[in-house]
Amino acid sequence: MVRKVQFKNVAIYSSINNQKVNSIADQVIEILSNLKVNCIAPNSSQIKTKLLKKTYTDKTVIKQSDLIIAIGGDGTLLSTARNYGYYGIPVLGINLGNLGFLTDIQPSDLTFALNRILQGDFIEDKRIFLEARIEGKNKKYQALNEVVLHSGSIAQLIEYDLFIDEEFVYRQKADGLIVSTSTGSTAYSLSGNGPIISPEVEAITLLPMFPHSLNARTLITSENKQIKIKVRDESKAYLSMDSHDNLRVTSKESVYIKKANTELTLIHPVEHSFFSSCRTKLGWSLGIPSKNTA
Amino acid sequence: MVRKVQFKNVAIYSSINNQKVNSIADQVIEILSNLKVNCIAPNSSQIKTKLLKKTYTDKTVIKQSDLIIAIGGDGTLLSTARNYGYYGIPVLGINLGNLGFLTDIQPSDLTFALNRILQGDFIEDKRIFLEARIEGKNKKYQALNEVVLHSGSIAQLIEYDLFIDEEFVYRQKADGLIVSTSTGSTAYSLSGNGPIISPEVEAITLLPMFPHSLNARTLITSENKQIKIKVRDESKAYLSMDSHDNLRVTSKESVYIKKANTELTLIHPVEHSFFSSCRTKLGWSLGIPSKNTA
Amino acid sequence: MVRKVQFKNVAIYSSINNQKVNSIADQVIEILSNLKVNCIAPNSSQIKTKLLKKTYTDKTVIKQSDLIIAIGGDGTLLSTARNYGYYGIPVLGINLGNLGFLTDIQPSDLTFALNRILQGDFIEDKRIFLEARIEGKNKKYQALNEVVLHSGSIAQLIEYDLFIDEEFVYRQKADGLIVSTSTGSTAYSLSGNGPIISPEVEAITLLPMFPHSLNARTLITSENKQIKIKVRDESKAYLSMDSHDNLRVTSKESVYIKKANTELTLIHPVEHSFFSSCRTKLGWSLGIPSKNTA
Amino acid sequence: MVRKVQFKNVAIYSSINNQKVNSIADQVIEILSNLKVNCIAPNSSQIKTKLLKKTYTDKTVIKQSDLIIAIGGDGTLLSTARNYGYYGIPVLGINLGNLGFLTDIQPSDLTFALNRILQGDFIEDKRIFLEARIEGKNKKYQALNEVVLHSGSIAQLIEYDLFIDEEFVYRQKADGLIVSTSTGSTAYSLSGNGPIISPEVEAITLLPMFPHSLNARTLITSENKQIKIKVRDESKAYLSMDSHDNLRVTSKESVYIKKANTELTLIHPVEHSFFSSCRTKLGWSLGIPSKNTA
Repeated sequence: MVRKVQFKNVAIYSSINNQKVNSIADQVIEILSNLKVNCIAPNSSQIKTKLLKKTYTDKTVIKQSDLIIAIGGDGTLLSTARNYGYYGIPVLGINLGNLGFLTDIQPSDLTFALNRILQGDFIEDKRIFLEARIEGKNKKYQALNEVVLHSGSIAQLIEYDLFIDEEFVYRQKADGLIVSTSTGSTAYSLSGNGPIISPEVEAITLLPMFPHSLNARTLITSENKQIKIKVRDESKAYLSMDSHDNLRVTSKESVYIKKANTELTLIHPVEHSFFSSCRTKLGWSLGIPSKNTA
Repeated sequence: MVRKVQFKNVAIYSSINNQKVNSIADQVIEILSNLKVNCIAPNSSQIKTKLLKKTYTDKTVIKQSDLIIAIGGDGTLLSTARNYGYYGIPVLGINLGNLGFLTDIQPSDLTFALNRILQGDFIEDKRIFLEARIEGKNKKYQALNEVVLHSGSIAQLIEYDLFIDEEFVYRQKADGLIVSTSTGSTAYSLSGNGPIISPEVEAITLLPMFPHSLNARTLITSENKQIKIKVRDESKAYLSMDSHDNLRVTSKESVYIKKANTELTLIHPVEHSFFSSCRTKLGWSLGIPSKNTA
Repeated sequence: MVRKVQFKNVAIYSSINNQKVNSIADQVIEILSNLKVNCIAPNSSQIKTKLLKKTYTDKTVIKQSDLIIAIGGDGTLLSTARNYGYYGIPVLGINLGNLGFLTDIQPSDLTFALNRILQGDFIEDKRIFLEARIEGKNKKYQALNEVVLHSGSIAQLIEYDLFIDEEFVYRQKADGLIVSTSTGSTAYSLSGNGPIISPEVEAITLLPMFPHSLNARTLITSENKQIKIKVRDESKAYLSMDSHDNLRVTSKESVYIKKANTELTLIHPVEHSFFSSCRTKLGWSLGIPSKNTA
Repeated sequence: MVRKVQFKNVAIYSSINNQKVNSIADQVIEILSNLKVNCIAPNSSQIKTKLLKKTYTDKTVIKQSDLIIAIGGDGTLLSTARNYGYYGIPVLGINLGNLGFLTDIQPSDLTFALNRILQGDFIEDKRIFLEARIEGKNKKYQALNEVVLHSGSIAQLIEYDLFIDEEFVYRQKADGLIVSTSTGSTAYSLSGNGPIISPEVEAITLLPMFPHSLNARTLITSENKQIKIKVRDESKAYLSMDSHDNLRVTSKESVYIKKANTELTLIHPVEHSFFSSCRTKLGWSLGIPSKNTA
């Protein structure tokens, strides 16, 4: 899982405009500069810094970068993944506050951790995207965590038929259906009491939200299957990707969801561990047994 | 629980305008007429019938009726309870389709069941209302099932502090909080995996919706307590009662929820049983043991 | 809830024999002695101390004490409640380790807290016992937390019919059924994902363990109801009270469970709060809002 | 997934001795005889029939059979899988009562279904076994559904450390831990509110039973990982496989669980469908949309 590479051209991005982000960005730019690494930012970045003379189109950023550093929280990382990671640029996340599941450099560790990574000391971690499209339309929408089909309102049911690889699975009434990747298993799906799924498990989780029926359960299928959800008559539905977008799905339309052709490459420090993130983020037992007692 | 009374003036109401409702209404009016019972309808009723010459204001209906018959589904019964039952008129529900938890006369049983009830053969079943108001405002809103404070959007957190009788309970981030009566325990709360609470238990259930924290749990307190939920900075929140209304709650405002001073009186056929409704509606074991094997 | 009384005769008890318990016991005896309060211990107590010359029968302890101090963990408190509290002696719990839901004096606070309580500065907190008996037998068994009817083995189903006040509720197959008081809602029932129930709610919780059917749910009924569970043919079942006893229930026998006639009186320091215990014990949000922001 | 083969030597087995099983067995033997297929039974089979002159050792049965037909319920199929399927013999299940997840020929369909299958019209369905062994011992134990490490008693905690591929995951107190295959996701794990996992998902589910901590969650890892559970001091634990065996695990011993080297081959009629079994067995929506509305 460890591969030595050399990053020559690095982009930085944040969807947040505040003093803390700008200050971390300045620090990142200096570290890159000391290592003679070229640094650019896309036009859409909210970072304000005097150290970068100009910004570039997404197209240019995607063409010229071999790494993008996302500075912020989960929202910034999800945007970076969809807008740049999806096009093949590896993503490294610097977290503003506490460690996240996807971002694992903290500001306090920045200089040391970033230097090590840029010099080739890192782990590559591949994650799938889900890709959703509405029947009869060409546009595809990406999600790293989850696609949610929902009624748009609290306590309002929609009714839909679920198909997996065109085989009928069930008809269900619920506030909505969460279609989650393993990456998303520690996000919205977890709040809905879904299982935690280790990133290497090739699975899609289907979790009904406030289902009408008592025998509805979370269903896990292979990530190589195509999910189809057909909204039934008189149901008004919406589709959201990573809590983003909010597409209207007309009654009787179907939504198709499947694994995208491209993957996200996350870059981690070598000490990164999914289970260690679980312990920290979820408050699991923190007493790590020492080597000889284990 | 059984009390013999005589109904002289009966109102009928539905929030639905369709052929089936109108036809049941005609049948009800005839039965009432045969028993020399006076029958009126409020202006807001959607029933279309030639058998009633005119309709009346809610004020008149409330003043003149000693029973109101709700024809429809859960929505009709909840409206009837809030708009007439809250003002002291006993409510009898005729269900359009399957038996409900609150409506327990079926169209197929109508003549026999209604005659028996009007002649005094019935059970009275008292239920509380929750009453919600926003800090600094006088208007009170009633709910028979539940009051929900929510973010207005799927997968969007609000943060709030919960107080019970002005004692701090917890600070929580979630999509929302369901505050349910025992009556509401078989409604939205049940979809969120809440417990089923027998109507006689004097309890309010607080069920967080998609809570951010893994140790959030459903909390049940006495129905004689006052619930206060204080929305924290930067949270955009809404308040809904029985999936009705959708009031904007401004950040830092508090919502107060407590038992209303008046109760709902539901009228049931004498064979009504809550557990029997559970078995039918929830698909619980249908094999009722015969007397001698029990 | 606060009542000033004076304790003249105090018993001490522990089901644990270790240095820590003995040392706390010595400290308690000294505090009692300084206040001229008489101190005795039952024969069954495991406390080893030179400060008490002799021990007494339970009968004598019950007759002579107006308070019993339980030193230990949950197990000690539950035994004290069943063996002395059930017979009318108020119970005060000193916890060996962390604060419990029922024991709320910590060793570090001992001198100050105990002095205040003995001088009349305390809260009385009434809790019900459940009382279980097997059909055809006279012996009754008490539980403060829960009565569990179970198969005696992991992953082995029993089948039973549930009746509430002799009305049939459901037939169910499960590893067992937890019948819990509100006090017990933070004990075994909570591990089974049951709701947390505030002590003042007069409720009994029925939580099936690993039920065979997907539509089984937790059911909450009034604590004034009688629960009957009839074990069906070919099921081998056991009955346990507060994880104690393990009575064999023969196939076709019924178990009756109802509120006992006597109540437990728990003695707390005046600052005791159930919700505060929840925050500490369950790791709920610890940031208590200050008065002016609340 | 469909492969045409010809079965020349077929074994039959049941762990049940009753009239219904014997009668189905006779019917099976006749069908096999008509097709000139050789039929034998192992010594351990409980089937009583005059149509088979003698029975054979397991060794002979395994050597000589290219199919084994299990007649009975889940218990019979699980034994057949562990005792013969594990050694490479494909398994076909005839269900005594209702359709199961693993057995999908019903007595009423027997002649038609069995003829088609024996003539090569079937689906092969591969399932993994979990293999458990206790540290320091050579003997391995197989499970098709789940391995459970547990305390041996209701409401009694054990404490253990979980490791996945020798990486520490968490320390936990619970009544036990269910380690389930995807096949087992519709068995005991489902009763514990675990997700339903489609058979093709290469996953192992770790579901804590009545965990002490509120933030314990179901964890799903790859079936290619090795699970290690180290029982901590003072915990008395037992290990069971498919609710079978009940091995004593000494405190401080570790249990190793991983995918076995051999797989089970289940034989199904061509119309077999996992989702269809879910709908029938779990009572999911039964209204299958017709082709043109889908």
